[in-house]
Amino acid sequence: MQIKVMEGILDKNDQISAELQERFRQSGILILNLLGSPGCGKTTLLENTIKALKSKLSMAVIEGDLFTAKDAERIEQHGVPVVQINTGGGCHLDANMIRSALDCLDLTALDIIIIENVGNLVCPAEFNIGEDVKVTVLSITEGDDKPLKYPLIFKQASAVLLNKVDLLPYTNFDMQSAVGDITSIHPGVTLLQVSCQSGTGLEDWYNWLIEQARMKRARRASNV
Amino acid sequence: MQIKVMEGILDKNDQISAELQERFRQSGILILNLLGSPGCGKTTLLENTIKALKSKLSMAVIEGDLFTAKDAERIEQHGVPVVQINTGGGCHLDANMIRSALDCLDLTALDIIIIENVGNLVCPAEFNIGEDVKVTVLSITEGDDKPLKYPLIFKQASAVLLNKVDLLPYTNFDMQSAVGDITSIHPGVTLLQVSCQSGTGLEDWYNWLIEQARMKRARRASNV
Repeated sequence: MQIKVMEGILDKNDQISAELQERFRQSGILILNLLGSPGCGKTTLLENTIKALKSKLSMAVIEGDLFTAKDAERIEQHGVPVVQINTGGGCHLDANMIRSALDCLDLTALDIIIIENVGNLVCPAEFNIGEDVKVTVLSITEGDDKPLKYPLIFKQASAVLLNKVDLLPYTNFDMQSAVGDITSIHPGVTLLQVSCQSGTGLEDWYNWLIEQARMKRARRASNV
Repeated sequence: MQIKVMEGILDKNDQISAELQERFRQSGILILNLLGSPGCGKTTLLENTIKALKSKLSMAVIEGDLFTAKDAERIEQHGVPVVQINTGGGCHLDANMIRSALDCLDLTALDIIIIENVGNLVCPAEFNIGEDVKVTVLSITEGDDKPLKYPLIFKQASAVLLNKVDLLPYTNFDMQSAVGDITSIHPGVTLLQVSCQSGTGLEDWYNWLIEQARMKRARRASNV
């Protein structure tokens, strides 16, 4: 019974997600679903990314949160369009929430929409929201055992960012072990070691993102 | 429809949780539901707690995890009974899982069962599992904005542990702001600043736990 209900919800969600993907296929806008635990550094990564790339890419952000607009307020200060979704306690964003949020954005001149999901390493991985790519952020302060404990979110990610590497000297995080586990769960995944505080590794992340946006536009061009 | 189903599941869960509470009321065993994000330090806290208290309190542990038995293996090395529950991808423990796990424990001589929930700051807060107290662990590396962003889990906790305070000098965590937010969400909550690496604050945690177990036994004594 419980399982059937869950399948029902996921079916409906996948249907709306596919609708959104078709809409974005035509527009050529790259849709990125940004995932990770509470406090892994998603919002700070976004702030850095906007500062570095807003002159090169036309960006908008959708912020998912249980109750507050704290993250949207942070993003707004950087001068890009942002929509806050409050799930009212819900543990993930779904495709229907994204469809509604799009009404608040001018989609005519955008290159990329980054959707920051609810901070949660479990539930958001189960719900597609019309994205081209999922990106998972893991803070090294969370421990090197997390990829094997929460494999789905690493399996589904096109890129994994190991964040807060500036704190490596103060933790017992085993980078070799974590990298080994992530690449065994998802062979070929793009794996970047970054620090949003010191800036380490962020150039590689920006270049990856620019390339994803370029490929999305190229796919549209070949479709029309 | 979605909401009705959720209520149905929660009703059934609350019913089993109440059954468990009645069972533990009679036995005088303290049941503790340990909550927090992935990597906030729940398992390390448990390891420290077992080492410090196993000569004073007879303890058992129930470990909740999506797939692996990694945490249970860590606990087992400290010589206390441990049961691993794998949720198979599920984002929280429920009362029925706990009822099943109890079949694997000898309850005759226990003072306390600590249940380490799935690493998740959202969903586990919604499901009672027969516990006397919830304890929420927040790593300071997760950021001082988390209490207001995930209020339920702080509202429901009898004690909140702010962990990894040894890393405070390397982060921008505002302790005064976090403490202010937590006590505004939950006035009177027990709030402890600890480091499982350096040992800071752990004595206060141990004393709190011993006192909770003593009170539970006293309640049983006054009931029989």
